[in-house]
Amino acid sequence: MADFTHLIEGKAVMVDVTTKAASERTAKAMAVVQTKDVMIHQELSLKAQQELECVIKIAAIQAAKKTSDLIPFCHPLALTYMDCNVQFEKNRIVIECTVKANGTTGVEMEALVGANIGALAAYDMIKSKCKGAEIENVSLLYKEGGKSGVWKRPSKAM
Amino acid sequence: MADFTHLIEGKAVMVDVTTKAASERTAKAMAVVQTKDVMIHQELSLKAQQELECVIKIAAIQAAKKTSDLIPFCHPLALTYMDCNVQFEKNRIVIECTVKANGTTGVEMEALVGANIGALAAYDMIKSKCKGAEIENVSLLYKEGGKSGVWKRPSKAM
Amino acid sequence: MADFTHLIEGKAVMVDVTTKAASERTAKAMAVVQTKDVMIHQELSLKAQQELECVIKIAAIQAAKKTSDLIPFCHPLALTYMDCNVQFEKNRIVIECTVKANGTTGVEMEALVGANIGALAAYDMIKSKCKGAEIENVSLLYKEGGKSGVWKRPSKAM
Amino acid sequence: MADFTHLIEGKAVMVDVTTKAASERTAKAMAVVQTKDVMIHQELSLKAQQELECVIKIAAIQAAKKTSDLIPFCHPLALTYMDCNVQFEKNRIVIECTVKANGTTGVEMEALVGANIGALAAYDMIKSKCKGAEIENVSLLYKEGGKSGVWKRPSKAM
Amino acid sequence: MADFTHLIEGKAVMVDVTTKAASERTAKAMAVVQTKDVMIHQELSLKAQQELECVIKIAAIQAAKKTSDLIPFCHPLALTYMDCNVQFEKNRIVIECTVKANGTTGVEMEALVGANIGALAAYDMIKSKCKGAEIENVSLLYKEGGKSGVWKRPSKAM
Amino acid sequence: MADFTHLIEGKAVMVDVTTKAASERTAKAMAVVQTKDVMIHQELSLKAQQELECVIKIAAIQAAKKTSDLIPFCHPLALTYMDCNVQFEKNRIVIECTVKANGTTGVEMEALVGANIGALAAYDMIKSKCKGAEIENVSLLYKEGGKSGVWKRPSKAM
Repeated sequence: MADFTHLIEGKAVMVDVTTKAASERTAKAMAVVQTKDVMIHQELSLKAQQELECVIKIAAIQAAKKTSDLIPFCHPLALTYMDCNVQFEKNRIVIECTVKANGTTGVEMEALVGANIGALAAYDMIKSKCKGAEIENVSLLYKEGGKSGVWKRPSKAM
Repeated sequence: MADFTHLIEGKAVMVDVTTKAASERTAKAMAVVQTKDVMIHQELSLKAQQELECVIKIAAIQAAKKTSDLIPFCHPLALTYMDCNVQFEKNRIVIECTVKANGTTGVEMEALVGANIGALAAYDMIKSKCKGAEIENVSLLYKEGGKSGVWKRPSKAM
Repeated sequence: MADFTHLIEGKAVMVDVTTKAASERTAKAMAVVQTKDVMIHQELSLKAQQELECVIKIAAIQAAKKTSDLIPFCHPLALTYMDCNVQFEKNRIVIECTVKANGTTGVEMEALVGANIGALAAYDMIKSKCKGAEIENVSLLYKEGGKSGVWKRPSKAM
Repeated sequence: MADFTHLIEGKAVMVDVTTKAASERTAKAMAVVQTKDVMIHQELSLKAQQELECVIKIAAIQAAKKTSDLIPFCHPLALTYMDCNVQFEKNRIVIECTVKANGTTGVEMEALVGANIGALAAYDMIKSKCKGAEIENVSLLYKEGGKSGVWKRPSKAM
Repeated sequence: MADFTHLIEGKAVMVDVTTKAASERTAKAMAVVQTKDVMIHQELSLKAQQELECVIKIAAIQAAKKTSDLIPFCHPLALTYMDCNVQFEKNRIVIECTVKANGTTGVEMEALVGANIGALAAYDMIKSKCKGAEIENVSLLYKEGGKSGVWKRPSKAM
Repeated sequence: MADFTHLIEGKAVMVDVTTKAASERTAKAMAVVQTKDVMIHQELSLKAQQELECVIKIAAIQAAKKTSDLIPFCHPLALTYMDCNVQFEKNRIVIECTVKANGTTGVEMEALVGANIGALAAYDMIKSKCKGAEIENVSLLYKEGGKSGVWKRPSKAM
């Protein structure tokens, strides 16, 4: 069974990836903004939805680039692709963030940081209207590359 | 009923707080790391729990300071206090982040960013063991200061 | 006649604003992307124009917040408002950025950094099509607040 | 004819460079500070000119490193060389910035950000004396590396 | 006798300065680069010394602005003045950094970070020649403002 | 005898590492916090020592990642490993920081920045108790990789 590779004998450590071979890495993560009783789809014009989507996307991409500055034991990585897909569904905003790199460690945290900060940016944009909104289901959907190969979240549709 | 003050005629805008009076502001937010079937309390030694708590706390505090860099339409604020409380509960890590400032706008987003990045830092530290972990319940618990006064989340214990 | 207050006896210095009274400050600056022979108005759909405008606006606002990190002798300032207006005019993109603060020094550099980085973000988005594009007319349009009062650029329309 | 590779169906996208081969990249860009009626060459001592040149150079280099943080759809790149040349010419300061990397995408934006922020740093240093200064001619001079090979600006001397 | 106000019951905490009155704060700190057997004064031309001094000064000022990003339990502060004095003395480079702010907490750490990063920037510039250089005597020289009033380092000349 | 490769004809320059081959690089540096007459080992509980060690370690690691942002003529590097060892010895805190990368230039500055900012973070945590503390012996201990091979500090135990 897997171990806590970041907590060795009670001490936080960074994983040494100096001698690992670089390979193509992809990760996809999601986050959901639950807008409570506000039907975001109906309340926002198409133009406002496009604008909001653009704000979310840029927040996600710019945050993914800052992952190693935000998460103490993450390595700095030269990301080669980032994308962010936004769906407005009744009282939910569903954000999916994809990240790629050629590197010696995976981009799982980058995808999660992207999706999650995208969700917080959405929250900020709608919070005057959607009191009590919450962010849910921040989770990894897909991971590829490196020794461990492909991982897919069992129960969630991609 | 409240409006989308950040989306005017379909355009994203920053709220102008130039002429608002500064006042003491407090906000408290939470985030939960759902560790699936890993009983984090049992799997980690007390020493490892203290270490993990310290990692989460610093990640939360350092991220709260970066809120206006992460969330495009947030104002930069001179925060005067930040704290982060971490509870290990069976298969959950519950993170609460408190932020204060003397400012012309609230610190809701700072508390949310703190709690949420704290949760992502926790996720990173345990992800080798807790495959499929998720972050849930990222939500504002309490807000005080400014024209709108005190707001408490109805259904959640503080 | 005015002096070089940042270059004293051949040495670069920061101006000391410790004892100056805080007051409301506004500055407005512009920058123009000259797209050469590409009629940006015709080549881009309305949807693409809105998207591009959003990218420019966020780049401008996020850069204005980073002014003291980019310009060595600028003071860090708690900005209270930023806005960015974008016009597509034949083969030009005209960007105007407005910044406000309550502070002991002006926000002229913040407005210029905002407009200028907005222009560079536009350049990046169109460079595959508009080879040889240039940025022109990066200039202050308006400044208000502090001892020196209101300043307006003589020859340019607001 | 070339397309808008950053704007696909009206949506801003990052270009995927995951599978592109790394190669040596060079780019050189310029920016001009127009000091209006102030003969910068005569007004500043040689010592002040050297100091100002040093401020511009460091601002340019440090900004070029931040390109992917300033320009939303730029990739983070491990730059291997940056230089900044400054000429004081009557009422103009001419700044040229050279950037190199071994990477899967070009360093055109890095050179432009460097030259342009160098120009803004110069503007800040002289603005107390040179009211109404402007930045002009922010433009790419030279680009080398990658599939598209060498590109030189037609009408400008190097 | 004073306590560890940042370590309460074994836990790292930020000090709450929300209700403290703002006042003028000054701090001055020093750091020394010990260049071993290299007589820096003789080895570097006056021009190179001015250049090196400028690099040190900008590194110091830019780092002082980043103090709350570098030191986890420091508050973000709107600094109003920074200066950095550099002396070349035989085999030592002596760096003094002064920082001011109007704030609710002191600027001691900002002055120390400034002087110290200035010293590291000097180290970087001379390390090819001065193998085995060290940084010594990083220390607070002077502090003024707030409840505790003036503090001067007993044994060191200012 | 070695030259000042960063100061050519009186001008600060970045070293061009574009055509150098990448290789594994390691560097180890130290810094000492001299706590004057406070026996840190006795004054702090074991729990507080672990907490303080964690604060130092994270400050060191996060600062090492920011080296090229702090030191003007350093190249950005994709670090692959960082660690920070902390020893509490009577009235001294001894911090050692190890950094690794696969790169075209060494990680000496990254290790020094890590150890040194770790020391400043320690200073901040104890300064309310240890008035007049100083940082000493900031020095490189070990360097490996690249053309110059292994370098060990002569007189200091590893």
